[in-house]
Amino acid sequence: MKVKEIMDKEFIVVSADQNIDKVSILMENRKKFTTPVVDDNKRLVGWITSLDVTRGLREGKNKVSEIMHSKDNIVHVHENNPARLAVLEASNHKVVSIPVLDDEGVVVGVIRTFDIVKTLSKLYEIKVYKIFEAMEHELKGVSWNELMEASAIVTRRSTGERVTAEEYEQRIKNSTFGEAIWATGGLEKFFVGLIAIGELVIARKVAKARK
Amino acid sequence: MKVKEIMDKEFIVVSADQNIDKVSILMENRKKFTTPVVDDNKRLVGWITSLDVTRGLREGKNKVSEIMHSKDNIVHVHENNPARLAVLEASNHKVVSIPVLDDEGVVVGVIRTFDIVKTLSKLYEIKVYKIFEAMEHELKGVSWNELMEASAIVTRRSTGERVTAEEYEQRIKNSTFGEAIWATGGLEKFFVGLIAIGELVIARKVAKARK
Repeated sequence: MKVKEIMDKEFIVVSADQNIDKVSILMENRKKFTTPVVDDNKRLVGWITSLDVTRGLREGKNKVSEIMHSKDNIVHVHENNPARLAVLEASNHKVVSIPVLDDEGVVVGVIRTFDIVKTLSKLYEIKVYKIFEAMEHELKGVSWNELMEASAIVTRRSTGERVTAEEYEQRIKNSTFGEAIWATGGLEKFFVGLIAIGELVIARKVAKARK
Repeated sequence: MKVKEIMDKEFIVVSADQNIDKVSILMENRKKFTTPVVDDNKRLVGWITSLDVTRGLREGKNKVSEIMHSKDNIVHVHENNPARLAVLEASNHKVVSIPVLDDEGVVVGVIRTFDIVKTLSKLYEIKVYKIFEAMEHELKGVSWNELMEASAIVTRRSTGERVTAEEYEQRIKNSTFGEAIWATGGLEKFFVGLIAIGELVIARKVAKARK
């Protein structure tokens, strides 16, 4: 996935010689805490946040150029960079948004942390039963019911909880991978459970074939 | 994981009768785009953003009470809520931060989207070989080398790429689960690969036991 696939294209831009008063109204109306500052060719030259604006208004500054951070002092990414890079940049630099540039340095979008949260949520909020469907498809010769039975057995073995195959099926239909990870406290533990299920179901398949 | 485990405890608070000028200086110095408004007992009564402050400064308002959103109109979560809830609230409401309350309605923290991004990154940026270590541990009687050989074979089968067991090992030592998911384009595909490896290694184990 690339930066351009998760960036916000509904961004606003301002120019360095614009009046701070007008810029603050634009930012308030469009609910933007940050905005790129661009030249006549829409190329990035700087960046302002609403906190730069409050300082500017209080100190009686007039132009955007008096409050902006120059391009060299801010984080920016290229539209073809991996989306992961933007996630790591936002995480490392504790910024709420990052301008996205094309080859010419033109601002083509803005990555916002809530867009990242949304993307990450979507990526991991897939239903757990989708993983079991993939497992059923991969483990040729194993039926869905056999998979659910093995899952119920593994759950009983590892947690002591008495759960039927039907209850297990209901559970994975309602829960997402994200929930499972947050609940088990980590990917490894979740995966160990899946491996145990896979192992049991394959052992049963082999035993059946021998008969 | 609970909200209180990922919230920022280094937050600032302001009161409704404070002067906007002073509040704006505090927010600028502490780099906060938002802040809870609390009563004398630190209970949440409202919320302001830096965009409310720019409007207030421009329109010559004096007190926080003149610009704040009341508690009823904003998103807030309880410290014992699942952390996932805060993630979904931030994603759905497109907010950059959410106040966290205890049973008495006292503000005990603030969840910020870049904290969420950081947590999500950490959660998924575990090394892929950690999953293989869990697999080796779970599949008793299967050695690390057998696991790497099976992985190389599955990779060759599914992608046509000729990779040795040693190269495969190097690859999983350098890459993270997050990278693997972004690269394969989805969780199911990643798991299908792992299941295929598990199946092959178990089949070989069974064959060996029969000899």
